[in-house]
Amino acid sequence: MIKVAVDAMGGDYAPGEMVAGAVDAVNTQPGIQVILVGKEDVVNAELSKYTYEKDRIQVVNATEVIATEEPPVNAIRKKKDSSIVVGMNLVKKKEADAFVSAGSSGAILVGGQVIVGRSKGVERPPLAPLIPTEKGVSLLIDCGANVDARPSHLVQFARMGSIYMENVMHIKNPRVAIVNIGAEEEKGNALVKETFPLLKECRDINFIGSIEAREIPHGGADVIVCEAFVGNVILKLYEGVGATLLSKVKGAMMSDLRSKIGALLVKPALKATLKSFDASRYGGAPLLGLNGLVVKTHGNSKANEVKNSIIQCVAFKEQGINEKIRESLNADREHE
Amino acid sequence: MIKVAVDAMGGDYAPGEMVAGAVDAVNTQPGIQVILVGKEDVVNAELSKYTYEKDRIQVVNATEVIATEEPPVNAIRKKKDSSIVVGMNLVKKKEADAFVSAGSSGAILVGGQVIVGRSKGVERPPLAPLIPTEKGVSLLIDCGANVDARPSHLVQFARMGSIYMENVMHIKNPRVAIVNIGAEEEKGNALVKETFPLLKECRDINFIGSIEAREIPHGGADVIVCEAFVGNVILKLYEGVGATLLSKVKGAMMSDLRSKIGALLVKPALKATLKSFDASRYGGAPLLGLNGLVVKTHGNSKANEVKNSIIQCVAFKEQGINEKIRESLNADREHE
Repeated sequence: MIKVAVDAMGGDYAPGEMVAGAVDAVNTQPGIQVILVGKEDVVNAELSKYTYEKDRIQVVNATEVIATEEPPVNAIRKKKDSSIVVGMNLVKKKEADAFVSAGSSGAILVGGQVIVGRSKGVERPPLAPLIPTEKGVSLLIDCGANVDARPSHLVQFARMGSIYMENVMHIKNPRVAIVNIGAEEEKGNALVKETFPLLKECRDINFIGSIEAREIPHGGADVIVCEAFVGNVILKLYEGVGATLLSKVKGAMMSDLRSKIGALLVKPALKATLKSFDASRYGGAPLLGLNGLVVKTHGNSKANEVKNSIIQCVAFKEQGINEKIRESLNADREHE
Repeated sequence: MIKVAVDAMGGDYAPGEMVAGAVDAVNTQPGIQVILVGKEDVVNAELSKYTYEKDRIQVVNATEVIATEEPPVNAIRKKKDSSIVVGMNLVKKKEADAFVSAGSSGAILVGGQVIVGRSKGVERPPLAPLIPTEKGVSLLIDCGANVDARPSHLVQFARMGSIYMENVMHIKNPRVAIVNIGAEEEKGNALVKETFPLLKECRDINFIGSIEAREIPHGGADVIVCEAFVGNVILKLYEGVGATLLSKVKGAMMSDLRSKIGALLVKPALKATLKSFDASRYGGAPLLGLNGLVVKTHGNSKANEVKNSIIQCVAFKEQGINEKIRESLNADREHE
């Protein structure tokens, strides 16, 4: 049994969609127990709407909620009885294997480091979402709060990302590339130029060189390494351009009667195709390199993404990702 | 009469599409003369296919071509008779008002600074393409080669971009924002945190604060300020995500008979709508802050984009953008 703590109070659609996703997860996937963390009465009221095996969902009370706009360091320190702090403490005390939250990114990143704690040898834990591509998915690492990263951090990101893609997503010998403004080795800013030769020397990854942003949606690499500012821009622009284009396509289809009839005919095929480009299918983003698993799902997650984020924890735990990361990074350290 | 020198040899479809675009420009817009720079015999052979007023297109011979993969500094120094060097010298000697090229970005950026020269007071000339948004277009400044920029550079970019959008695109009091990973003032990397207060103090721009990448396609600001590495990622990801999504939409529409019939009905409306999201409509990207105008068009430009890039030079020249930039930046300098 794998135990996943879920933040019932975080996210735009909490607690309703968080609870619904938890129920869906236990009803879909055997071998999972969920611990819903949040205001007991509210969570129980939601739970009473569903049918599920009672012993597979437990509620742990947390009286406080950290809001998205709260300064994260302060929030984690002061709100000891918030769903994020209580949930992360369950992971710390090994009462849960993982913690899934759609709440404040900042608080999750801070809490992950402060409460769950960095794994030995990890300099900075990166937030690594899966992004859809033409060919499947790629891991974008780092999209967290580690701005102004150093080359050694990026090398660790490359390694952790490789381990994740190989073991959780089952991509053999994943192609690792660094985001750059040209394909040539001599291009880039100071950080990329310093990191490039270090990645080239790295024997335990399949480094294929630079990747230009244009190639990311085409699936040009499996693990896309960058510092968090650039990662954040990529992740959010992906969403923004996608949303704008799709709304333009929809608008065009509704613009006159002829188009409306055409849209009815096209709709089923279009829906199926675009679903493959929908980030929510792939669950949340793991915060890698911690003494336990923390997964951040989109703030606007609905039940389906919550369910997928919970199920994702199974492969992570079963494959022993944390142990593999620890081994890899510390083996490296001994060589130095 | 405004004289625009055009690099007949640069770009994926040179010389054919470059020459076609030049002919279209003089046939569409009065008051323009074009100087086609390149291998005389090749250019004349292309020109002989078209009808146009002979005295409005002139050919200037240049025997060499700078390839995209050549190291730019070296290429500009050694290939004195290349179309880029010859064309830029025409601007330097005031024999042309502007130079338009679809050739090597690196060589154009280097040549602009070395041959045409920076305008007094300009620290770094930024490359500033227009990108399509839901509401129209925004100026993305800088997408050039100025990686690892300093806060003072970004402030100049904000000012130059404002002047451009106000006078060339006729957007009154353009909204200026800096690309950031959150909307709050305290967020961001070191560069953004240092630049933010400087932009706030700047009285001659309408600074509206941070913009997250997600809001860029929605048209959240008119002038989008960032350093070139981030700008390059934004520009190329815009193209990449757009291309991938549209190919997915097209694929879906061709997937079965029902969809194919629907696609026929939807096509006219869809085409018209998506055209508004097509970067080529807006011509090339000016390299701002030089002693003359240099415009970089996409490497894969066809006649239409070349034509628009040439026509764009008219407004730039007529509005005296260079003079306005010089005044603005030097007025500032005197205050210091």
